Amino acid sequence: MRYFNNDYNEVCHPAILNALAENSGVQMPGYSADTYCSEAAELIRKKCDAPNAAVHFLVGGTQTNLTVIAASLRPHQGVIAAESGHINVHETGAIEATGHKVIVLPSKDGKVDPALAEKIIESQSLSMDAEHIVQPKLIYISNPTEYGTRYSLAELKELSALCKEKGLFLFVDGARMGYGLAAKGNDITLADYAKYSDAFYIGGTKVGAMFGEAVVIPNPAIAEDFRYLMKQRGGMLAKGWLLGLQFKTLFENDLYFTISAHADKMADKIRETLTDLGYALYLPGTTNQVFVTLPDKLLKELGKEFTFATWEEADEENTTVRFCTSWATTDENVDALCTALKNLSE
Amino acid sequence: MRYFNNDYNEVCHPAILNALAENSGVQMPGYSADTYCSEAAELIRKKCDAPNAAVHFLVGGTQTNLTVIAASLRPHQGVIAAESGHINVHETGAIEATGHKVIVLPSKDGKVDPALAEKIIESQSLSMDAEHIVQPKLIYISNPTEYGTRYSLAELKELSALCKEKGLFLFVDGARMGYGLAAKGNDITLADYAKYSDAFYIGGTKVGAMFGEAVVIPNPAIAEDFRYLMKQRGGMLAKGWLLGLQFKTLFENDLYFTISAHADKMADKIRETLTDLGYALYLPGTTNQVFVTLPDKLLKELGKEFTFATWEEADEENTTVRFCTSWATTDENVDALCTALKNLSE
Amino acid sequence: MRYFNNDYNEVCHPAILNALAENSGVQMPGYSADTYCSEAAELIRKKCDAPNAAVHFLVGGTQTNLTVIAASLRPHQGVIAAESGHINVHETGAIEATGHKVIVLPSKDGKVDPALAEKIIESQSLSMDAEHIVQPKLIYISNPTEYGTRYSLAELKELSALCKEKGLFLFVDGARMGYGLAAKGNDITLADYAKYSDAFYIGGTKVGAMFGEAVVIPNPAIAEDFRYLMKQRGGMLAKGWLLGLQFKTLFENDLYFTISAHADKMADKIRETLTDLGYALYLPGTTNQVFVTLPDKLLKELGKEFTFATWEEADEENTTVRFCTSWATTDENVDALCTALKNLSE
Amino acid sequence: MRYFNNDYNEVCHPAILNALAENSGVQMPGYSADTYCSEAAELIRKKCDAPNAAVHFLVGGTQTNLTVIAASLRPHQGVIAAESGHINVHETGAIEATGHKVIVLPSKDGKVDPALAEKIIESQSLSMDAEHIVQPKLIYISNPTEYGTRYSLAELKELSALCKEKGLFLFVDGARMGYGLAAKGNDITLADYAKYSDAFYIGGTKVGAMFGEAVVIPNPAIAEDFRYLMKQRGGMLAKGWLLGLQFKTLFENDLYFTISAHADKMADKIRETLTDLGYALYLPGTTNQVFVTLPDKLLKELGKEFTFATWEEADEENTTVRFCTSWATTDENVDALCTALKNLSE
Repeated sequence: MRYFNNDYNEVCHPAILNALAENSGVQMPGYSADTYCSEAAELIRKKCDAPNAAVHFLVGGTQTNLTVIAASLRPHQGVIAAESGHINVHETGAIEATGHKVIVLPSKDGKVDPALAEKIIESQSLSMDAEHIVQPKLIYISNPTEYGTRYSLAELKELSALCKEKGLFLFVDGARMGYGLAAKGNDITLADYAKYSDAFYIGGTKVGAMFGEAVVIPNPAIAEDFRYLMKQRGGMLAKGWLLGLQFKTLFENDLYFTISAHADKMADKIRETLTDLGYALYLPGTTNQVFVTLPDKLLKELGKEFTFATWEEADEENTTVRFCTSWATTDENVDALCTALKNLSE
Repeated sequence: MRYFNNDYNEVCHPAILNALAENSGVQMPGYSADTYCSEAAELIRKKCDAPNAAVHFLVGGTQTNLTVIAASLRPHQGVIAAESGHINVHETGAIEATGHKVIVLPSKDGKVDPALAEKIIESQSLSMDAEHIVQPKLIYISNPTEYGTRYSLAELKELSALCKEKGLFLFVDGARMGYGLAAKGNDITLADYAKYSDAFYIGGTKVGAMFGEAVVIPNPAIAEDFRYLMKQRGGMLAKGWLLGLQFKTLFENDLYFTISAHADKMADKIRETLTDLGYALYLPGTTNQVFVTLPDKLLKELGKEFTFATWEEADEENTTVRFCTSWATTDENVDALCTALKNLSE
Repeated sequence: MRYFNNDYNEVCHPAILNALAENSGVQMPGYSADTYCSEAAELIRKKCDAPNAAVHFLVGGTQTNLTVIAASLRPHQGVIAAESGHINVHETGAIEATGHKVIVLPSKDGKVDPALAEKIIESQSLSMDAEHIVQPKLIYISNPTEYGTRYSLAELKELSALCKEKGLFLFVDGARMGYGLAAKGNDITLADYAKYSDAFYIGGTKVGAMFGEAVVIPNPAIAEDFRYLMKQRGGMLAKGWLLGLQFKTLFENDLYFTISAHADKMADKIRETLTDLGYALYLPGTTNQVFVTLPDKLLKELGKEFTFATWEEADEENTTVRFCTSWATTDENVDALCTALKNLSE
Repeated sequence: MRYFNNDYNEVCHPAILNALAENSGVQMPGYSADTYCSEAAELIRKKCDAPNAAVHFLVGGTQTNLTVIAASLRPHQGVIAAESGHINVHETGAIEATGHKVIVLPSKDGKVDPALAEKIIESQSLSMDAEHIVQPKLIYISNPTEYGTRYSLAELKELSALCKEKGLFLFVDGARMGYGLAAKGNDITLADYAKYSDAFYIGGTKVGAMFGEAVVIPNPAIAEDFRYLMKQRGGMLAKGWLLGLQFKTLFENDLYFTISAHADKMADKIRETLTDLGYALYLPGTTNQVFVTLPDKLLKELGKEFTFATWEEADEENTTVRFCTSWATTDENVDALCTALKNLSE
């Protein structure tokens, strides 16, 4: 079986395994009070051009989202997200379990529309009934989104300006941040995220690490007691240095960026093949996720050798599916996929 | 000023004030362990033809909703509601504060569409990713709805059957239940609510009482430890007999039904006048709430003598407003309103 | 039966019933946006010598406690209370249900010992492991306490100074505040509470009102979005003017103080009788609660005509019980109780 | 520096690093739907003689505790624990953050005393005020305890019988379970845990794994929807096979037991040395934690070459400290420590 169903199918980049092996037997202090964590944090701060930002390491995405959001909100405040936002649809109500409402905006491409956001902020907070209504205090975006689309720098700035004007926080879920940074056409840098958001995270689980997400918090209002919340929500790893060591490895010599670019290139190849074959992509994209609507017949055959994610029924004879590449995707597997797509389309 | 902005503008029905005065100086045990509460519960059970249902008395609607829902759900479960459902838009996230997601269905008339509900139940629970998704466990409806519309018995039965089939609870918010029971065309009885729902409440605050809602719980799975949750959520009144005495008064000699019918008749008069004047009602209805779109110019003048609730901007020159009658609305005030509407429409 | 089991056995002071009757038929705006509420708040602010304090009205004590505490704490913070504190033992975990730990101090007389509080504050916050430990942010005291004892002004000041020094809030549960203010030997005024605490409430349910507690919040950090939390936790009464009208009645002409003094005098009589009969009071006191250890034999006989609260088994033949007086306790009932105590002790 | 401050100072057992390296490049399905997880679960079920128990893998201890407890309790229920229980003192209120009270029992040796537990269960649930009091539903014990002491099989059975009789669950925190199973004098097996508890976990983080805890749930009432809660609380690892592979490695050829025995032997050596030198152990023990009270002078010198955990001030000149061994502790380091202790005691 060749796996294109997601981007977390392999252990981790060999450089990380090597680093682990080299540290076998070395003794280190717990809870991220080690030098690997401080070195990794420093590398990240430098890349973000944010010398004062707090940097913390957590194990997974849902944990990171719920901890950042719990740290940001008062009990009566909520978080604005696109309908397809991970926190709205794929975290078993993790945000609500911390007591907060996800205020949902309709969205076709997975992005938060600033105009819709502004409208709901005003209607919820300016209402004469405001006290009866959840008050939006944070906008949550994923970049790349759950549909593999990207925000432009201009769009990021617009959301940031809206948040500043209205007194909200902007939080960027970067589970696949590497694949966005390396994508063709992308004009956002890590420094931009640090400048225009209040908190964001740089995904490791899907981009080379065994596990781990690096949270960057430029806004001290959210950073203040973040480690208390990490511990309370079960997100403080005893052997924190495992996270530091991984992110140090990923951010030395720009490994994170190199391996991300590879994944995007692999996805471009699949996109090209699909377009050449006349299939319409579900949404345009240049990151590692390819959404396309294909005939059920073809998918049935394809499924014998390849895994992919079934997104939704398009009509009675076609289904929208997702092909995912990653830092670990091999040319060989992509070639095999493209060949199979061609053969099955004849 | 003549008040039509809501249905809780007056102290309470005189019969209740009398009952209070008669009990001045009488000593009673606390926390609803008194005879008034047991007598009121018995009267309600009888009217509901539900000899085994649990009946509890709470002070207000939001408190009742959050307590019933907290008692019904496991942590990963959520509640389905119409977009306009009170728990979704007007309770400052009370349900989320208990840890649960409100799963929202689009709705134009304030009702839950069984077909949409079924679709979301199936998509959330049959998904291969089900563990990543909030599981619907309860359908919340208001009857009458927040738009003054009503479910028919057939609709109630259909939702009930859906819930039974899928293993969900059905809960009816009856903040204005009296006005629904007494409305022209209504074919639902209290016994139907007891038969077709797992829990519902009979609103007192808006229907004659000073305050108070009577929760009826036919399903023992929800009833089991309900009083613990009442106390924990701050909803157990020390002088519980104040609630028992009010509901006893309301359910003796069918006072609850008589005063509800009066409110509906008053609203009918307003509806008739508006229709005669050529205004289109926003939604059809026969309960105590009248939603209508009127010219801003007219409303400005009308607002000098009458209060009403502003619902939403219809267009640049018209606004949708709500006129509300209640058990206490006088013929004199309704006549004054109708006359004013006529005069301002000439 | 003559009731001495608690202080909420009667409807309310006749002056309040009169005020309600006078307002029958009067229309008022909802949610405490009425003139009664603003007048009552103004009367209270004046008595507290706190022109800038926020004043809000809630229905009951548990609701008030959980709302104030939820408004005061970040998720990883907890509240320090005496072992016997109401929030620790008699609210079904209401505070924990808002996500916060009650950090318990041992206490024999129901009071928080400042030395113990200081020790725990330091050990929890100065620990090298601080991030793994709940951080105390609020000290909760009841005055009078659940054992009928009282803090002196000096003790209140000491706790206040400790809180200021350590960055904590001080919150006073005043469910029986009237009975403390009017007690022999008391040297605390409402103005002291406003000066030395960050939030406190003036109990109505047990002191003349039908129901209701007036929360006074001198510290704007807690007051800021308090009404949002009131609504979210189910504590915002639709007919808020019912609360305003009651507190206006209680604070006009010092009714609250007069009726409180009566209750204390009634309790003094019982204390005197018990002491004369040679029974040792469980704890000294001058408020409306009398704790005393009596022979089971006597209690069995006494229980035929009088209700009292059983506190705990003292030994195999004696039990500690509580007699409670209130604003409504009659001389006749107290005389009957004292006579019975004497007769049964011969 | 030689580390004796805790038992999570090294990456992991070399066998696990080897297994990871062997799987580099292998593609696997996510969320524990892989064969490593099912094989590991099967190995564990066999060792536990519990063919029907659910087995799940989580990353860390706090996460595991909060997830099991959230899965076990209704909102008004609480968990009984010893004063020194990890959930009570070292998880930043993680249990309270899920809405539940930790009901604390005094304890000198870290164990729950069944007599005290029974007393509190009865007093909380049989009280006439039961509805005002948190209801105990689960007893939480750690074995070995936070003080390195152990329960005997007889004690485990007694707690189990109490729970069954009173309708409570018994949950065993086994963060250091290996060190208990391998300890001199231990008479509890994994099969006993499966037979006498409703849920327990086998710690990996402190016993050879890089990270990970294996939760075993013999009671289907807790197991039913456990994976939903894992996801909601941020505890479902995307690359779940990392956990399966580690536990498979630990449970093949009894590696888990062999390395645990080594740690205990190392601790025995330290205990022996301390006793020979005339120091009184703080508490008796045969597991990997050694608690002892030593002169501050000695500790100051010792601290220059060795790390240890400072527990609490014993008196002005002595401090209670903890020396911790682990699967990774070398004979060389223990010898160095014992020599230093001897030299500094002359």
